[in-house]
Amino acid sequence: MTPGTAAIIGGGVIGGGWAARFALMGWNVRVLDPDPDSQRKIGEVLANARRALPGLADAALPPEGRITFCTDAAVAVSGADWVQESVPERLELKRDVYRTLQEHAGDAIIASSTSGFKPSELQAGATDPGQILVAHPFNPVYLLPVVELVGTEANPPETLTRADAILKDIGMHPLHLEHEIDAHIADRLMEAVWREALWLVKDGVATTEEIDDVIRLGFGLRWAQMGLFETFRIAGGEAGMRHFLHQFGPALKWPWTKLMDVPDLTEELIETIAGQSDVQSGRHSIRELERHRDTNLVALMRALKSQDWGAGAVLNATDAVLRKKNGMVQRFEDIYDLTQPILTLDRTVPLDWTDYNGHMNEAKYLQAFGDATDRFMEIVGCDAEYIATGGSYFTAETHIRHLDEIHAGHRIHIKTLCVGGQGKKMHLFHELWEADRLCATGEHFLLHVSLDTRRPSEPSPAIARHLAAIEAGHQGLARPAGLGRAVGQPR
Amino acid sequence: MTPGTAAIIGGGVIGGGWAARFALMGWNVRVLDPDPDSQRKIGEVLANARRALPGLADAALPPEGRITFCTDAAVAVSGADWVQESVPERLELKRDVYRTLQEHAGDAIIASSTSGFKPSELQAGATDPGQILVAHPFNPVYLLPVVELVGTEANPPETLTRADAILKDIGMHPLHLEHEIDAHIADRLMEAVWREALWLVKDGVATTEEIDDVIRLGFGLRWAQMGLFETFRIAGGEAGMRHFLHQFGPALKWPWTKLMDVPDLTEELIETIAGQSDVQSGRHSIRELERHRDTNLVALMRALKSQDWGAGAVLNATDAVLRKKNGMVQRFEDIYDLTQPILTLDRTVPLDWTDYNGHMNEAKYLQAFGDATDRFMEIVGCDAEYIATGGSYFTAETHIRHLDEIHAGHRIHIKTLCVGGQGKKMHLFHELWEADRLCATGEHFLLHVSLDTRRPSEPSPAIARHLAAIEAGHQGLARPAGLGRAVGQPR
Repeated sequence: MTPGTAAIIGGGVIGGGWAARFALMGWNVRVLDPDPDSQRKIGEVLANARRALPGLADAALPPEGRITFCTDAAVAVSGADWVQESVPERLELKRDVYRTLQEHAGDAIIASSTSGFKPSELQAGATDPGQILVAHPFNPVYLLPVVELVGTEANPPETLTRADAILKDIGMHPLHLEHEIDAHIADRLMEAVWREALWLVKDGVATTEEIDDVIRLGFGLRWAQMGLFETFRIAGGEAGMRHFLHQFGPALKWPWTKLMDVPDLTEELIETIAGQSDVQSGRHSIRELERHRDTNLVALMRALKSQDWGAGAVLNATDAVLRKKNGMVQRFEDIYDLTQPILTLDRTVPLDWTDYNGHMNEAKYLQAFGDATDRFMEIVGCDAEYIATGGSYFTAETHIRHLDEIHAGHRIHIKTLCVGGQGKKMHLFHELWEADRLCATGEHFLLHVSLDTRRPSEPSPAIARHLAAIEAGHQGLARPAGLGRAVGQPR
Repeated sequence: MTPGTAAIIGGGVIGGGWAARFALMGWNVRVLDPDPDSQRKIGEVLANARRALPGLADAALPPEGRITFCTDAAVAVSGADWVQESVPERLELKRDVYRTLQEHAGDAIIASSTSGFKPSELQAGATDPGQILVAHPFNPVYLLPVVELVGTEANPPETLTRADAILKDIGMHPLHLEHEIDAHIADRLMEAVWREALWLVKDGVATTEEIDDVIRLGFGLRWAQMGLFETFRIAGGEAGMRHFLHQFGPALKWPWTKLMDVPDLTEELIETIAGQSDVQSGRHSIRELERHRDTNLVALMRALKSQDWGAGAVLNATDAVLRKKNGMVQRFEDIYDLTQPILTLDRTVPLDWTDYNGHMNEAKYLQAFGDATDRFMEIVGCDAEYIATGGSYFTAETHIRHLDEIHAGHRIHIKTLCVGGQGKKMHLFHELWEADRLCATGEHFLLHVSLDTRRPSEPSPAIARHLAAIEAGHQGLARPAGLGRAVGQPR
């Protein structure tokens, strides 16, 4: 599909998110909003989107579309392929807007971002009801892929097909609902949680932070990769979804939530759910689902570790305790023998470090070597506190030899030889071992830099002293095979 | 804390998860379960846990504790520091179990995994009510960190303090609830969603798969990193949480869920929520929260891309379309000039590729070069289909020169020179550019291998032919500076 033109009616957070997604995916965008502040507001959403969306893709996005701000509905929608309405949630206001838009919108699709109204309510009284449908996105619209696409019998099937294609063209996943309902699907689920949570706060059972923590450190992580039913399918274990439903059926009668209006869990409903669950997940055994879930959870939580956020922050705190417990050297003063290589990494290869060849991906070797270098830097005194004062080491050059394969679950360790540590220079040689197998070596040349000027600079006297002492201590060690080797050089 | 001994009473999925977490964090574990099949069942949970948990940490775990299976309660709990009860959810059964356990449990903490019962219900009739509390975990117990810790006034404060310390020692995040309530916090929220979802399926509005998709491609991703309230705080925008609550208050009267028993959103409740939200999130401005949210979402979704799962699978499908659109060479036949370096990467640097030095992390250079190598392999015919037949290339040696800094948001591209492509060998030289700045070079030597024997082998004739043609075409190009260079060699 060639990028077209989208008209964005209403430029709040949601309208701005649509504008940003369309523009970054190459569409020209026209924004219609009477608010004189809308250009600034949309500019802020756009800045966020330009920061986050392009790098989400592992391919280049098309050239960004042109964004223009209009005050005239005719100018905004004439010739547009898509019109997205995101005005406030007042039905009469929306209907008025559609009457104006339909005077100029040609055969564009007019989609509403409404959280709550059904498409039939939006279509009532419209010049052409079949042109209007619901496309309900999730904030931030420029990142989250799902969009609830809801029409009525008034919409020609071709309109929904075209809507589906356009939403996919901007990287979204349209979920086409067969039946309209107040608040569609997702907001019904969220509204139930919201109402329950209001009771918990009102009754003093939990604070907002406790409720958020129990979500983001618990079922929120599960729901980022499997939803409610697939998760419960696993909970049913080998006996499966029918067993789960029979087992947990009685809980529906219990006061576990304020929502006591509950459907009867008849055999018919159990069969419906179990049958749909088979269609959804039946291609995986329960064991396979467990392993997918676990690999996903490890990947998600490790992603949050890199941001030191939520579950990732909890794990990082645990790691710090583990390092103290397992005797890793933390500071220069802790080195018990200056004439021996230093243990700079000791860990198990995580599930998210493997690739299509079934072994540790090459980039993760440099991840491990980089982590070992970070640890060596900490030991000589270039720790987070020092870096905050404006000095650090940048890697200038790296040479890696892959000598043997490593798999997820292997316990690996790295021993580090300091080849040189004079002045601004730091020259390290890491050996990566799995038990007594030498699996790889990493040779690294780093320079101390000023983080202000980004130019080479002298390290602190303490760092220089520690480095010189380690270099001197390591002088007596045999130079390892592979040191100073170039790629392709005969062995 | 020195790892102690935990007694696991009831060896199902939850009991097994506890056993695995305790053992992998160094505790000795005794399992008591009358089911003759429990050893097999726990073995399966343990296998999953051993696969996933150790690599989650970036540090080595303590040596695994010993797991023994008991049939006698006295043997299981005598001298234990922690007793975890995970028997079926029948109150009388649990009370019976406690009576037996308390005969032998000394001053161990007796914690229940109950999803629904309040600690006061569990304590009623016990020999020593103060020894019993609720520690409600989330499946998989060996991965998800949060645990709801609920006591009553019968528990000495020291017992809760000790429970907190032990749970932290096994890497968990205890959430201490001040007031007991049926189903604690998390299961109330989940039960509300579950009941709402049952209605949606029963009424034919959505299938289990549609409900799961709208969760895992939408709000589930948000909830993996921020909960309900912090997300809504952002939705309130610059005007904040009070504005959000006033704006969305009316929706509480609307039929957006079956849960119509709603607390009045009084000014007092609004102040309570807004005040708690300030305590929770007030240290960040709304703009900062938006950026944290976006960086987290990018990191989470990119983690799922690596698993080709959920939102990650949606993004990978979009990437494939983008690559076709933006003119990247897909196959050997598409190369329009065999005498020029081949464009093998063209992308924007994502938010999760930067590190504490404020620029692209060194391991991500090799990620980019590795992705470029993958693309080159695909072009010569070593694509997923070929790899499935049992042949692939393994990297033997890599040399990277870091010439200039790269930041998140930079559009980078890689041009690849084929230095050698005879027989089993593939020798590539990648140049990584940001606009007209040469930022890094990567020299890589790969060998074709049989994925069965993991030994070098000849590639397919088609691959050999393509590689030879590219090598011949590139013969006329000047050898780049840095080719064949060793680390530390004078320039």
